Amino acid sequence: MKINELKSALNKKRIDFAIFYNLDSIKTNPNIFYFSGYDGLGTLVIPAKQHPFLIVPEMEFQRAKRSIVKKVYSMEKKRFFESVYNIIKKNKIRSKNIAIDKNSFSLNSYKHFRKQFKNIKVKDIALDCSKLRQIKTEKEIQYLEKSCQYADKIVQKTIKNFRDFKTESQAAAFLVYETKKLGLEIAFKPIVASGNNGSMPHHEPLNEKMKKGFCVIDFGVKYKGYCSDMTRTIYIGNPSQKEQDIYNVLLNIQKNIINKIKLNKKCSELYDFVVKDLGKYKNNFTHGLGHGVGVEIHEMPNLTLNSKDKIQSNMVFTIEPGIYFPKKLGIRIEDTVLFKDKPIVLTKTSKDLIII
Amino acid sequence: MKINELKSALNKKRIDFAIFYNLDSIKTNPNIFYFSGYDGLGTLVIPAKQHPFLIVPEMEFQRAKRSIVKKVYSMEKKRFFESVYNIIKKNKIRSKNIAIDKNSFSLNSYKHFRKQFKNIKVKDIALDCSKLRQIKTEKEIQYLEKSCQYADKIVQKTIKNFRDFKTESQAAAFLVYETKKLGLEIAFKPIVASGNNGSMPHHEPLNEKMKKGFCVIDFGVKYKGYCSDMTRTIYIGNPSQKEQDIYNVLLNIQKNIINKIKLNKKCSELYDFVVKDLGKYKNNFTHGLGHGVGVEIHEMPNLTLNSKDKIQSNMVFTIEPGIYFPKKLGIRIEDTVLFKDKPIVLTKTSKDLIII
Repeated sequence: MKINELKSALNKKRIDFAIFYNLDSIKTNPNIFYFSGYDGLGTLVIPAKQHPFLIVPEMEFQRAKRSIVKKVYSMEKKRFFESVYNIIKKNKIRSKNIAIDKNSFSLNSYKHFRKQFKNIKVKDIALDCSKLRQIKTEKEIQYLEKSCQYADKIVQKTIKNFRDFKTESQAAAFLVYETKKLGLEIAFKPIVASGNNGSMPHHEPLNEKMKKGFCVIDFGVKYKGYCSDMTRTIYIGNPSQKEQDIYNVLLNIQKNIINKIKLNKKCSELYDFVVKDLGKYKNNFTHGLGHGVGVEIHEMPNLTLNSKDKIQSNMVFTIEPGIYFPKKLGIRIEDTVLFKDKPIVLTKTSKDLIII
Repeated sequence: MKINELKSALNKKRIDFAIFYNLDSIKTNPNIFYFSGYDGLGTLVIPAKQHPFLIVPEMEFQRAKRSIVKKVYSMEKKRFFESVYNIIKKNKIRSKNIAIDKNSFSLNSYKHFRKQFKNIKVKDIALDCSKLRQIKTEKEIQYLEKSCQYADKIVQKTIKNFRDFKTESQAAAFLVYETKKLGLEIAFKPIVASGNNGSMPHHEPLNEKMKKGFCVIDFGVKYKGYCSDMTRTIYIGNPSQKEQDIYNVLLNIQKNIINKIKLNKKCSELYDFVVKDLGKYKNNFTHGLGHGVGVEIHEMPNLTLNSKDKIQSNMVFTIEPGIYFPKKLGIRIEDTVLFKDKPIVLTKTSKDLIII
């Protein structure tokens, strides 16, 4: 996506090329994936005035050839930075001003990089990339909508079958199974947190008897590399009136804040508003209100206390207030929301309290 | 694990403390996990002369409290590096010589870090950590053995059910489902690569009709955070004599090289030996011979062309030669191997060619 927009930015800043590395064969560099569609180990070079190209290990050559970047080089075995340097030299690309992603470049990789690229000026392109990525193209919006549809479908099927799950692990296994069967990936390890486990927002599903009370289900898939993210909290057993009331307080806050999202609204204001609305529960809300989603599950904008981000058209982000009582219970309600001229909720599963 | 060994190293190098960061709430810093058992966002401080402590966001406080590090601080919202600095100051820990992990510290995080920690000397502790981690304790060996047992069990069940899978995605879904049901994590996204897809060592399972021919199944789980890694190549349909011969060439090479592993053997020599043994197929082997496994799926030692590593007691690593014909087929056979005074194969699933 947006290779031309990046090239314009490079030209404006008089940068010769941007270079992105992924040195870990089982991870993906989100910027390489975003610009090229390639998700493996290797290097993406985007010259300001020429076509982009990938440099990958021989074992990844075929896969890289299927990306949208048509020029792919195979690098020499185990001489990562030297290979990259030689290929750039062979392509006669001016190498005076180089842009790198300082968010993903480790101190040690940078040391090796600078052994090859000596007389250069380095600029950080990380923020530019994040800002390009936070405004989605129509194609990306299609992918994100589809990703949310799949998440909805799988969450609904999981809730429908919930009585069959004896443990949180079984419910998590079902979520992942349904995802993989469709040839999709999970966007993150699903959270199934029953009873007092729900008070830990990042609880990992346990292979123990499911507990009664609220049960937080936080789930999302990747469709063509694009993430969805949603949380529904259901109730196992018979909720007291007080429990139902707390749930509904949170639900109303979640719905209200979505309606308050407007063009140019400060994200920190949205966060502040939720904290105010929570009243006596404000100290029971222990995380951010939301985050952008795209090729990464967490990206810009940040909907948090000190965020400087503002809502813009074609942003896609989560709205996920929660209330947690340590060692007792947790409730979180989360949607993925697209902002056009108004907010559009992409995850459509009912938010009324489901009692199992 | 090995906090005391790290503290000795710090004392020897006259370092006041080592500090490890994880700024990404859905990733794990392997060194933080290794030393503390905590896998979330936050900071681990290991002073040379005092007890280690964790600094985590409020939402992770309960989870961090369950780690083996008993001192846990909750940090201020969104002031990551400042919070960390203040807590270290309050603990009156000398802060002149600080060790960081330059493999996992990004250029931008380092910039923020140095805004707080000004008059200090920084040393890189990354290699020391990797070297501690590559020699497993008896406890770790138990975990790794168990991890391999689970991987074996799940792979065998998957192969037994293989006729039921119409697509690679279905087979991958089954692998993951069986893992999650047991309350375990996958060590990496499973690879199921049928027919010509097998020629891409990192092929991602497709939701399309499974192809006839060789089918590569590369899989591992995490048990208590410890990875297993194994590959079996099965055959769907009727293999020709030539196909069976190639398979057996590779199988014999894989078995032979395991028998050649000896104390102090250079890892690069093991790699060279396999290349030599492959004869006319040597150019069809496009990746390393193996890698260490532990809390990470890829760690030291490296069994590759230019590796400087040597085999030592209590190392655990993979042996995974492969033969790939681009756009035609791929075969890989991989075991996780423990080296004591001799090699012990931990993944015990039969390696004879299974025909489905």
